[in-house]
Amino acid sequence: MLVIGDEILSGRTRDANMHHLAGELTRAGIDLKEVRVVSDDAAAITAAVQALSAAYDTVFTSGGIGPTHDDITADCVAAAFGDSIDIRDDARALLQAHYDGTGRELNAARLRMARIPSTATLIDNPVSIAPGFTIRNVHVMAGVPSVFQAMVASVLPTLTGGAPVLSETLRLELGEGDIAGPLGELAARYADLSFGSYPFEQNGRYGANVVIRGQDRPRVAAALADLKSLFAA
Amino acid sequence: MLVIGDEILSGRTRDANMHHLAGELTRAGIDLKEVRVVSDDAAAITAAVQALSAAYDTVFTSGGIGPTHDDITADCVAAAFGDSIDIRDDARALLQAHYDGTGRELNAARLRMARIPSTATLIDNPVSIAPGFTIRNVHVMAGVPSVFQAMVASVLPTLTGGAPVLSETLRLELGEGDIAGPLGELAARYADLSFGSYPFEQNGRYGANVVIRGQDRPRVAAALADLKSLFAA
Repeated sequence: MLVIGDEILSGRTRDANMHHLAGELTRAGIDLKEVRVVSDDAAAITAAVQALSAAYDTVFTSGGIGPTHDDITADCVAAAFGDSIDIRDDARALLQAHYDGTGRELNAARLRMARIPSTATLIDNPVSIAPGFTIRNVHVMAGVPSVFQAMVASVLPTLTGGAPVLSETLRLELGEGDIAGPLGELAARYADLSFGSYPFEQNGRYGANVVIRGQDRPRVAAALADLKSLFAA
Repeated sequence: MLVIGDEILSGRTRDANMHHLAGELTRAGIDLKEVRVVSDDAAAITAAVQALSAAYDTVFTSGGIGPTHDDITADCVAAAFGDSIDIRDDARALLQAHYDGTGRELNAARLRMARIPSTATLIDNPVSIAPGFTIRNVHVMAGVPSVFQAMVASVLPTLTGGAPVLSETLRLELGEGDIAGPLGELAARYADLSFGSYPFEQNGRYGANVVIRGQDRPRVAAALADLKSLFAA
């Protein structure tokens, strides 16, 4: 794993993503062999991606794919593999739909989050939409813990040899305390699926994105329909 | 920094020593540039010690110097520098006096903690006596957080840092996409300072802590005032 984290190296923030990933991999029967933490420095990121990609079966990165000028991870990963990078139509479409839906502007800064290497595949981000991506054996994910965790949940089942995981998200403007009870009963009825609840607060509105994941499309669709009827959404 | 930590890579334990050292170094005006976490594997430890010692001015290690069979850090560090290692009289005398005083036996296992490379100098351990050591530019310290912290306090004053770095933080409950444009312009106007944006989500609230760092107090203060007026915070 590679953590791109000035905030961790400066001591401002205590690591959470390394700890989360380590636990998830252990539960999946996968050994985490090495973690490196480097700063927002292009040469350091590129060299670490190359070294870890060559040394291990799979690499996860965390951080540096947001909209600000110091978010350089995507460009560094593209450079590490000699791939080209630009704003990609598939990622732009995801962001456009999201910002249109929330009435906010897809400005130049946010469009940075659609910069994806040309040969990468996108990683689903049910929490805040801006995707991660996979290139060769490297999975590039966000640093915000709730988004990192959602992306790990998207990627992990693909590593254990299982079928691809489908996800459906329902945005509920309800407190998690109102969601938890009915959601728990639904999760018990659909024990073959996994249910996640990711709280948000945006423009004074509170709520949670409820994500249903599974490998069987009709089952996921049925659970989503039940979820919608539970909350009359 | 090199963390020898199976317990961190397995997710059992959340890192504390990296976080502590990062904070102490920042306060001392020293940049922490990279952290690696490796398992209790001799080849991995030796290779990481060599790589980090060659790449950086100073290296700190944490973990693997206790009395059990998997405590192999001292031997690996000696091997990394081609030094010999055995039970050393100065370290044995420290342990002997300590265990005599507490009425416990200095058995073979505990004597492992007196294994010190021949060219190393000892690092004081006021908490549990068993010393760390310094060899070339590598400071080898214990993994138990209270002992690690005591050893850091022993070593840190011996290192010469630059002028202390001042930092000011402004918490903004705004999306990074709204912050990025104005922040980039401010960073360009204050090119002698460094600006970081660290997104957070806390109790469902999203935002970012913007941190301004520099060595000139009036410049940092001026940049903070401009930052506040930009976001009317």
